[in-house]
Amino acid sequence: MRTTVGWQAGRSGIALSRTTLERRDLRPDDIAVRVDYCGVCHSDLHALHAHTGDAPLVPGHEFTGEVTAIGSAVTRFAIGDAVAVGNIVDSCGACAMCRAGQENFCHEFPTLTYAGTDRHDGTTTLGGYSREYVVRDAFAYPLPAGLDPAAAAPLLCAGITVWEPLRALGAGPGSRVAVAGLGGLGHLAVKLAVALGADTTVISRSPGKAADVARLGAHDLIVSTDERRMVAARDRFDVVIDTIAVPHDVAPYLATVALDGTLSHVGHLGSITVEAADLLVGRKKLGSAGSGGRPATAAMLEFCARHDVTADVEVLPSARVNDALDRLQRNDVRYRFVLDLADLG
Amino acid sequence: MRTTVGWQAGRSGIALSRTTLERRDLRPDDIAVRVDYCGVCHSDLHALHAHTGDAPLVPGHEFTGEVTAIGSAVTRFAIGDAVAVGNIVDSCGACAMCRAGQENFCHEFPTLTYAGTDRHDGTTTLGGYSREYVVRDAFAYPLPAGLDPAAAAPLLCAGITVWEPLRALGAGPGSRVAVAGLGGLGHLAVKLAVALGADTTVISRSPGKAADVARLGAHDLIVSTDERRMVAARDRFDVVIDTIAVPHDVAPYLATVALDGTLSHVGHLGSITVEAADLLVGRKKLGSAGSGGRPATAAMLEFCARHDVTADVEVLPSARVNDALDRLQRNDVRYRFVLDLADLG
Repeated sequence: MRTTVGWQAGRSGIALSRTTLERRDLRPDDIAVRVDYCGVCHSDLHALHAHTGDAPLVPGHEFTGEVTAIGSAVTRFAIGDAVAVGNIVDSCGACAMCRAGQENFCHEFPTLTYAGTDRHDGTTTLGGYSREYVVRDAFAYPLPAGLDPAAAAPLLCAGITVWEPLRALGAGPGSRVAVAGLGGLGHLAVKLAVALGADTTVISRSPGKAADVARLGAHDLIVSTDERRMVAARDRFDVVIDTIAVPHDVAPYLATVALDGTLSHVGHLGSITVEAADLLVGRKKLGSAGSGGRPATAAMLEFCARHDVTADVEVLPSARVNDALDRLQRNDVRYRFVLDLADLG
Repeated sequence: MRTTVGWQAGRSGIALSRTTLERRDLRPDDIAVRVDYCGVCHSDLHALHAHTGDAPLVPGHEFTGEVTAIGSAVTRFAIGDAVAVGNIVDSCGACAMCRAGQENFCHEFPTLTYAGTDRHDGTTTLGGYSREYVVRDAFAYPLPAGLDPAAAAPLLCAGITVWEPLRALGAGPGSRVAVAGLGGLGHLAVKLAVALGADTTVISRSPGKAADVARLGAHDLIVSTDERRMVAARDRFDVVIDTIAVPHDVAPYLATVALDGTLSHVGHLGSITVEAADLLVGRKKLGSAGSGGRPATAAMLEFCARHDVTADVEVLPSARVNDALDRLQRNDVRYRFVLDLADLG
């Protein structure tokens, strides 16, 4: 086994402690990655709150770093390559979804980057809040030159989660996109929609984000408490990417969806209740999306390099991970914390 | 005023009684229609159950007949023309939805054929369970030659309600469509999907409908209680038209929707609850639809004439309307009752 250092949850509470971790010896198709930067995702918080202590929990599923070792059968990477890894690290490879390049929807469930179960040895996967990660080469992506590795890390979860629905729903020149909620996912949805050429509006509770909205390139801001503007936005958007991270009534956002348009709900899991009439009138659709397949992830990284899209990040030394989690819980970040793992040696 | 005879609800209960009704004198853009055949729709039952007796209720919103008089400005119709009328008879004409030819989604709400409020005189509209109807010419459709007027009547509500989502969702050659529920809407969805060239499957509780499924032209029947078949149908259909007329869990039907496909829920109104994960995995969408705009209704009638599509109907003299309602309530019809209004004189 290999040993490394990371930030692991205790038996209760969400505070993480520095711990020595084991990584598997490289299989023929594995690479070892020195993790340089790892984003702090809302789902890390969810996982910590749901943690029972029965299995080890090391969060982190959007990271960038450098290849430090390769297995005997690896041809896609060489030592020293800049790489990125997202929230899935394996899948069955045989089902219809895997064959369609949507490993994120694998019928046998993809192996998650942390709190997943390795398909070969049955161990619990430990995430990217650590100095080294060992991953199957097929689930690592070359990090294109020109992308800042700290600001690129959040592309691997937040970015791909909004990229897939934007692409699947045809966001581009001539389409009108709204992004509801301006956090980690939302600000990347805005940047990507703008770069795709869509007319892009932010719907946010916070009038105070007007300057950010303009800086991100969005064309309009609708403050969701401004009833007059919300009513005026009825049937306006071909695509609404709803990134609001807490349970909420989708009806006011559905009302802004145009004829035959779609609201894609990506902010959180759980039940969603809609009135059939709110879908019927305007023949609207409610969808969801999350994570991404390998071809889409690679395409997104290339697109981001071409269009200079990365996350707005606040980089903290990994020793401040508990501060980051605490502040994320209070939405006190614009727009993504990224841990710098160099302090782990 | 003009007088006619029709079937009107009492102050309570769902039984209808024969009554003399008033129709407005023709406005310049009105036509008078001798109603020959009127379909009996599930929503007629809903309206009767919800009826409080505060306003007169004469159901019926899918009918065919003959023009017997025209207003001074009418040019689209002449006396003697065969016509069809659906469930909306007016709209604002000015909003974005009306301008897009989706008068069914009019921002000021379309005027319903019965239990609506006339936009000019404020009276409650009385439906097609009557011998005469007066309607704005723009909301009547020429009934194409070759369509049986009794079997065509249900096209105007049941037909258009499934036609619009089938068309909007791209049902046609190369697409895989499932129709859940085989009743008034469902059997027309099957006929239309087959005529559009889609590979068409019925999902039904009733193994006893196998012969009908084949006769309707569908390519497969999945009995929804057959777990093995339902599991095997995972991610199979680009479009699922869910016509089930009672509240139900949509999850088993969503499971059969393919990557980026849509389940269109057209069977009833009310709340729908879904798990975000059931939409997320496969990037699926939940939609709804109902009724239709003028261009789509005209196009559907022409398509049906070309492809010889009408409803499977059981025609009853209108005096047996209460039998029809009673049997419809017990799902004892294959697949639509149509009232023959000739017995009203």
